[in-house]
Amino acid sequence: MPRRPDQKQWIRRKAAVLWAKQGYHATGVLELCEATGLGKGALYYHIGSKEELLFDISIGSVEKLIADAEAALATESSSAEKLRSMAEQLMRNISDDLPEWIVFFGEYNTLTGSMRKEVMERRDHYEALWLRVVEEGQATNEFRETDPIFVKGLLGMFNYAYLWIRHQGTLAPEEIADIFCDAVFRGMLAPALPAALEGAP
Amino acid sequence: MPRRPDQKQWIRRKAAVLWAKQGYHATGVLELCEATGLGKGALYYHIGSKEELLFDISIGSVEKLIADAEAALATESSSAEKLRSMAEQLMRNISDDLPEWIVFFGEYNTLTGSMRKEVMERRDHYEALWLRVVEEGQATNEFRETDPIFVKGLLGMFNYAYLWIRHQGTLAPEEIADIFCDAVFRGMLAPALPAALEGAP
Repeated sequence: MPRRPDQKQWIRRKAAVLWAKQGYHATGVLELCEATGLGKGALYYHIGSKEELLFDISIGSVEKLIADAEAALATESSSAEKLRSMAEQLMRNISDDLPEWIVFFGEYNTLTGSMRKEVMERRDHYEALWLRVVEEGQATNEFRETDPIFVKGLLGMFNYAYLWIRHQGTLAPEEIADIFCDAVFRGMLAPALPAALEGAP
Repeated sequence: MPRRPDQKQWIRRKAAVLWAKQGYHATGVLELCEATGLGKGALYYHIGSKEELLFDISIGSVEKLIADAEAALATESSSAEKLRSMAEQLMRNISDDLPEWIVFFGEYNTLTGSMRKEVMERRDHYEALWLRVVEEGQATNEFRETDPIFVKGLLGMFNYAYLWIRHQGTLAPEEIADIFCDAVFRGMLAPALPAALEGAP
């Protein structure tokens, strides 16, 4: 039986849904067999090992984000437009791959050795792309100077959505990203009224 | 043996550190006995049950945040100053109670019944205090109008720090909160240059 990519993808989703609900450690291989309809041998043929499956789930969504962000960065858009694209991609990705993100954030301590190292490196690489677009915008005076740690706050605005996005109402992920970008780009503070207008009727 | 509050607090911290590292389900009661130096009977005397201990850990930091935020809201400060205080409190709390927050975010699905309901309600109450200060600032024209969902992004900037704050360098939690507030209050976009200055030497 060949390892068809779509079947691997399908097994990953089934496992992510189970693990997101009840945790990686609490879920036995037999439950994975039940959920996928595969015997133990066939399941292991596809996944390698339970930890490899966790690795594949954890790194899959990050790689997709990196590819999309690198495409956005390669355009001729302004830094703000690039950042908005990356924000929309991230919110869409969190919404579409929610079980995978719940597993990622819940089990990032579970992976060991080189698999753990690779996931952390790719996650850091993704964060570096956000830092790059902010620093590009600062170099061209499009953005104000900020401490580099602000990028962690910026990413947190979106990443934290893995905990609430399924409970929000009818806004599309891209609409939420736009609301966040609009607020952060122009700032929360209302512009000061020109002195001449103060006290005007 | 009386239930001394400080001993309960000390057991909570020991359990939070263990659970933050290896997960709630993966940690047996015997490990809790070892970590606290208590026998099983004495441990259960103090904690009630393992799930009650998880409840106490989960709700403890939220209640502290609510009390601090309500005190900040009761001052005569501007809305921006109140929000800055709440942001500093939150970042300090995440930094000081990091094991408790890792347990909170990692195990929020583990609690059941009325304990789960109460934790979620208190967490929602805390979020409502952030929404209140933003809406107060909008009512007085100190803040621009934003969709209410922006408050979730604002909180996410800080909450997400539970994943990275121990790895950052030498900034105090309050300094990080201030950097985030400064950037979000005034906005990332640099002010447009007055037309008269464009092309000036």
